[in-house]
Amino acid sequence: MPQIDLSATTWVAADWGSTNLRLWLMTDDDKVVHKIQGPRGAAQLTGAEFGTELRALLAPVLTGRDGDPLEVIACGMVGSRQGWAEAAYQNVPAAPVNAVRARIVSDDRNELTVHILPGLQQLSPPDVMRGEETQIGGLLVSDPDFDGIVCLPGTHSKWARVSNGQVTSFATCMTGEMFSLLSEHSVLRHTIDTDSLDLASFETAASETLTRPDALLTRLFSVRAAALVSDARPGEAAGRLSGLLIGAEIGSLRGLWPDLPIAVLGASSLSGLYVRVLQAAGMSVTQIDAEHATVQGLAKAHRTLRRQMTSAAI
Amino acid sequence: MPQIDLSATTWVAADWGSTNLRLWLMTDDDKVVHKIQGPRGAAQLTGAEFGTELRALLAPVLTGRDGDPLEVIACGMVGSRQGWAEAAYQNVPAAPVNAVRARIVSDDRNELTVHILPGLQQLSPPDVMRGEETQIGGLLVSDPDFDGIVCLPGTHSKWARVSNGQVTSFATCMTGEMFSLLSEHSVLRHTIDTDSLDLASFETAASETLTRPDALLTRLFSVRAAALVSDARPGEAAGRLSGLLIGAEIGSLRGLWPDLPIAVLGASSLSGLYVRVLQAAGMSVTQIDAEHATVQGLAKAHRTLRRQMTSAAI
Repeated sequence: MPQIDLSATTWVAADWGSTNLRLWLMTDDDKVVHKIQGPRGAAQLTGAEFGTELRALLAPVLTGRDGDPLEVIACGMVGSRQGWAEAAYQNVPAAPVNAVRARIVSDDRNELTVHILPGLQQLSPPDVMRGEETQIGGLLVSDPDFDGIVCLPGTHSKWARVSNGQVTSFATCMTGEMFSLLSEHSVLRHTIDTDSLDLASFETAASETLTRPDALLTRLFSVRAAALVSDARPGEAAGRLSGLLIGAEIGSLRGLWPDLPIAVLGASSLSGLYVRVLQAAGMSVTQIDAEHATVQGLAKAHRTLRRQMTSAAI
Repeated sequence: MPQIDLSATTWVAADWGSTNLRLWLMTDDDKVVHKIQGPRGAAQLTGAEFGTELRALLAPVLTGRDGDPLEVIACGMVGSRQGWAEAAYQNVPAAPVNAVRARIVSDDRNELTVHILPGLQQLSPPDVMRGEETQIGGLLVSDPDFDGIVCLPGTHSKWARVSNGQVTSFATCMTGEMFSLLSEHSVLRHTIDTDSLDLASFETAASETLTRPDALLTRLFSVRAAALVSDARPGEAAGRLSGLLIGAEIGSLRGLWPDLPIAVLGASSLSGLYVRVLQAAGMSVTQIDAEHATVQGLAKAHRTLRRQMTSAAI
């Protein structure tokens, strides 16, 4: 294993979601020195445990270091009411990354200064996001004039209308969570093998609900019935369930924002499925690496804070 | 407790679903002598356990009885591949109660002769039902000329087109199961109290998805977001979730069969919610007691079998 020189680390970028923590050790000019995956998400920690957890993961950087606390810029559920400290939501329309309104916390030995970025909220229809706004902010670093829709597939996929550097409105779909619930806990579980998703079945099912998104509820049971009536295989059933859900999601939303370009933020196979259906729907799609966008968004916040500190020092 | 004279029992009606068993001790002229609730559904039993279970529940009738085995007419998941014995589906269009195609089984002491009625299947789109067809058959006993839609709310609600004494097509919606999954296992569980369903929230939500059933996936998360953004109460969240689901179900299906009368089969509070939304949608609705319909459907099958036996004896 090659030796990694961590001494160039001047700050840390953190994406701390409900179930995951990812840390990037960053240089002064926003290069990634090293990446660390934490074992616990915000949902598994409480109170002072957050600081202890983070200090333990950053021990290789903190050891032998002196002077000011290490700066950490964090986004995600770490800033929720049940997280480390609540970072109040910004109302849309808003620029997605607002470092000035970050909630600042320290660990109990004061070795870290953590800036938790606020999420976004929409009052009507009510909606919230934490973490995705920073990815959108990262996309805007690369493409400041982006005018379109950003789609972030996931357990709760987010669709954001972005214009003039702001998120103007957004919607959350529980599509990923529905797939998990239905394939693991519903009557469909007898029929489904999610390890072998059949792509042809995915595409057929997605085209059904893309044109008739309202038919989702009535078609779900067909995943089970097809296995009883015509011996559909478990991988076909998995493809069909995924296709019905993603097709209905895209079919329902595409009418809201017609003719706008769509950026799918995500590198996973899930994002690939979204791109496939969006292209089948005749939409203009680009796929953007989500990790890169996250780091860019956090780095943007860090630059803002550094400018602030520098001007305060003068 | 008044003494019940069980000696008038000449046959037994049984509705044996996945999670429930209900038995009605019946007279020769199809009056209910007594009702018994069994502790185990078909999903909790296997092989010879079915016969032992049924014999134990019917012991008060079997004790001291001699002559032919007691006749039992059963419907429901007891006839599935994982049930006592598979009663092959009838393809639609079909008269819903077909006693002649019942699967006949005995317990291992030959004290019971059980006729398991077949369910219905539809090849395209694939769909199946077991048990509900017998309730529809019972409705047709009371109203042989019924021409319309029968709605059977439940874990998996069924919608059947009935005409000329036949089920011509049907659809299953996993609405009830979705409500359970989302309120017990999803992120919405933090927000919901299903013991106090707020009716005003139910109606508002149902009217949203009744007119836009395709919006279901995007609105589900609003149940959670409303609690975060505007402190919606748990009973309001429960009402909202139920309303979104039932509104989307009815909104999606009502276009398939416009202008037909709808019979809602069910006496539960759930059925009352369906009636409320159907009426709000301007549809012609009657609510019919499901238990009465079940017994009537099973009694119809029994009369057919008795005629058959009588003519065979001559």
